[in-house]
Amino acid sequence: MALLEQTIAAIQNLDETAMQAARERQSQLTKPPGSLGRLERLSIQIAGIQGKARPDVSRKALFVMAGDHGVVAEGVTAFPQDVTWQMVANFAAGGAAINVLGRQVGAKVVVVDVGVVGDAPASAAVIVKKVGRGTKNMAVGPAMSREEAVRAVEVGIEVLAAEMDPPLDLVGVGDMGIGNTTPSAAIISAFTGRSPAEVTGRGTGIDDARHAHKIGVIARALAVNQPDAAEALDVLAKVGGFEIGAIAGVMLAAAARHVPVVVDGVISSAGALVAAGLAPKVKDYLIAGHRSVEPGHRAALEHLGLEPLLDLEMRLGEGTGGAIAMHVVEAAVRTLNEMATFAEAGVAEAL
Amino acid sequence: MALLEQTIAAIQNLDETAMQAARERQSQLTKPPGSLGRLERLSIQIAGIQGKARPDVSRKALFVMAGDHGVVAEGVTAFPQDVTWQMVANFAAGGAAINVLGRQVGAKVVVVDVGVVGDAPASAAVIVKKVGRGTKNMAVGPAMSREEAVRAVEVGIEVLAAEMDPPLDLVGVGDMGIGNTTPSAAIISAFTGRSPAEVTGRGTGIDDARHAHKIGVIARALAVNQPDAAEALDVLAKVGGFEIGAIAGVMLAAAARHVPVVVDGVISSAGALVAAGLAPKVKDYLIAGHRSVEPGHRAALEHLGLEPLLDLEMRLGEGTGGAIAMHVVEAAVRTLNEMATFAEAGVAEAL
Repeated sequence: MALLEQTIAAIQNLDETAMQAARERQSQLTKPPGSLGRLERLSIQIAGIQGKARPDVSRKALFVMAGDHGVVAEGVTAFPQDVTWQMVANFAAGGAAINVLGRQVGAKVVVVDVGVVGDAPASAAVIVKKVGRGTKNMAVGPAMSREEAVRAVEVGIEVLAAEMDPPLDLVGVGDMGIGNTTPSAAIISAFTGRSPAEVTGRGTGIDDARHAHKIGVIARALAVNQPDAAEALDVLAKVGGFEIGAIAGVMLAAAARHVPVVVDGVISSAGALVAAGLAPKVKDYLIAGHRSVEPGHRAALEHLGLEPLLDLEMRLGEGTGGAIAMHVVEAAVRTLNEMATFAEAGVAEAL
Repeated sequence: MALLEQTIAAIQNLDETAMQAARERQSQLTKPPGSLGRLERLSIQIAGIQGKARPDVSRKALFVMAGDHGVVAEGVTAFPQDVTWQMVANFAAGGAAINVLGRQVGAKVVVVDVGVVGDAPASAAVIVKKVGRGTKNMAVGPAMSREEAVRAVEVGIEVLAAEMDPPLDLVGVGDMGIGNTTPSAAIISAFTGRSPAEVTGRGTGIDDARHAHKIGVIARALAVNQPDAAEALDVLAKVGGFEIGAIAGVMLAAAARHVPVVVDGVISSAGALVAAGLAPKVKDYLIAGHRSVEPGHRAALEHLGLEPLLDLEMRLGEGTGGAIAMHVVEAAVRTLNEMATFAEAGVAEAL
C-alpha cells in the first residue's frame, strides 16, 4: 500500500508556465491561429504534463496488461478462456495487432501477465506478475480481495517504473483478458451511475441473447457486491479485474513521473476511472486515443471529461486505438517544435 | 487535352479478386472479426486499388499545389496575397506544417507552383509550372480560359507521372493559395447544388462581416459565370483555381496508375469534385483523410460518398490532414500484412 500511496502523493498539477510558453509559440508558427485544431491544444497539454515548453515524445511504450476473469463461468463471452494465454504468447511473438501498430509508431510493447489462468511458454517475452490465476466470479461475490486489488495496481506502478531508465516520454495502455468487457461495464456502471444496459456492449462479438444475459450478469454482480463508487479500491476489488487494476497503476505511475498516457478502449477507460477515483489529478495526464464501438466507453470518457482523438470504429483492445493515436500526439508535439515562426520564415501575418 | 483524355481512359475498376483475398485474410487474423473497424475496410480498398492481395504503402508523397486568385481583389481574405509565395518558400525550406507532418509519416513533399503571382527564390526546391500569374477575378468573369483549365489539370498529371520512377504507393494532395477557400466554395456550390451560404466558411479566419461579404462574392461569381455542373472543365474554368485543377490532375493520374490518394480539406475536396466530374471512377481511388472545420468540406465529401478518417478540428490545408491520415492508411495495410493468423499463432477461434 505504501507504493500506491507514495505514487498518488507524487502527482502534481500541470506546469502552467510551460503551457503558456507553448501557447505563445503556437501563435507565432506559420499557420492561421488555431488552424491545427486539436493538435494545438494537445501540444499545450503535453507541455504542461512534461513541464517543458518544447516537449518531446520520442521514447514510447505500450503496456499490455493481461488477466483472466471468473465471471466467464456465466457464459458472457464469444471466445474460450484459453485465448487469453494464447494471445499473450502471440504478443510475445510479435504477431498481434498491437505489435504491428507499436512497431509502426515506434513504441516498445511491454506485455505483463497480471493474472492469467494459463501460462504462455516460459521462453516468451512476458513479465509475469500474477496476482492470482484469474479473478473469482463477481456474479456470486467479490472478484478479488482488497489486498489483491492493491497488488494489481502496484504491479502497474512497478512495471512502469522499471521502464523509466532512460525515461519514457509517452505511454499507452492496453489489455487482454477474455471476458474483460464484463467487469469493465460493471466498473463504468458503478462510477458513472449509468445502468448496465446503457454501458454493456458485445465485446468480441456476442449475439442478442448472450448480450441480454451479459447485462443481467453485470446487474447481478453489482447487486450482490454493492461496490462503493466513493472508494475506487472497493469497486476494483468487487467487480474489477487484475489487468484493469494494473492499467490504473500504470496511469498513476506515469502521472507521478510527468509522462502523458494515451487511453485505449473500454477496458482502459475502466482502468482510468479507477485511477481517477484514487487520484483525481491523474485525469490531466490522460489523452483519450480513440472512441471504441463499446457503449460503455463513451460513458466512461464523458465521466472523465475526455474527448477521443480518433473514431475508427475499432473494438479490439490490446491498446490498438491508443497506439494509432500516438502518431497524432507526436504530430502535435512535432508541429509545435519543428515549424518555422512567421519571423523565421519571412511570412506576413494576418492583415 | 490528349494527356487528360488518355489519363481518364486509363482509370479502371477496382480489382475484385484482390479485394476478396484481402477480405478472406482479414477473417483469419488474430482478432475478433471486424474489430479493427475502418482499418479492415480500408485495407480491402487499398488491395482493390493496387490490385494486390497484400498491398504496400511504403513509398509516399504529398503534392502541394500553389496558386493565386484574382478574387482576392474583392477583399475575401485575412492574409495578404504575398503570403502565397512566402509560404511556397517556407515549404521549400522545410518549415511549414506539411513539411513536419510529411517527415513524420515518411512522405516526400513535392511543391508545385501552378500559378502563383509572385516567385519564391529561384534556388527554392519548387517545381515551377505556372499556368498564369494568378487567376482573374471570378466575381466579374471567368477565372481562367478553358485552355488554362485543361493545362492546370495536366500540370497535376505531369508532376504525378514524374514521381513514378520508382512508383509511389500512396499519394496525398494539398494546397496553398491565399483566397482559395472562395473558389473552392463556388465549385462545391456548383457541383452539389448547395447555396453559397451553406458551403462558405471563414478560411484562415475572417470576421462575421467579411464572411457575409465572401458569401455575396461567391453568389455573384456563380451568377455572372453560370458554370455548368455537367461539365467539370467549365466549372473549373469559370470559378476554379490553377492549384485546384492541378489537384484534380494528381488524382486522375494516380487513379490511372493504381495509386490511392488521400484527400485533405476543403480545397482538395473541390479538386476531387472536378476530378470526379471528369472521371466518376476516380472516387473509388480516394480516401478522405479528415473532416475540416470548413462547412463546404462536409458537403463535398457527402457528394463524393466519402467518410473522413479523422476529425481533429483542423483547417490549415497544405495537405496536413491527409498527411496525418496516411499513418492510418499505413496501419490498415500493415495490420493486414503483418498480423499472425489464428493458425499461425495457435490461437483458438470464436466458440
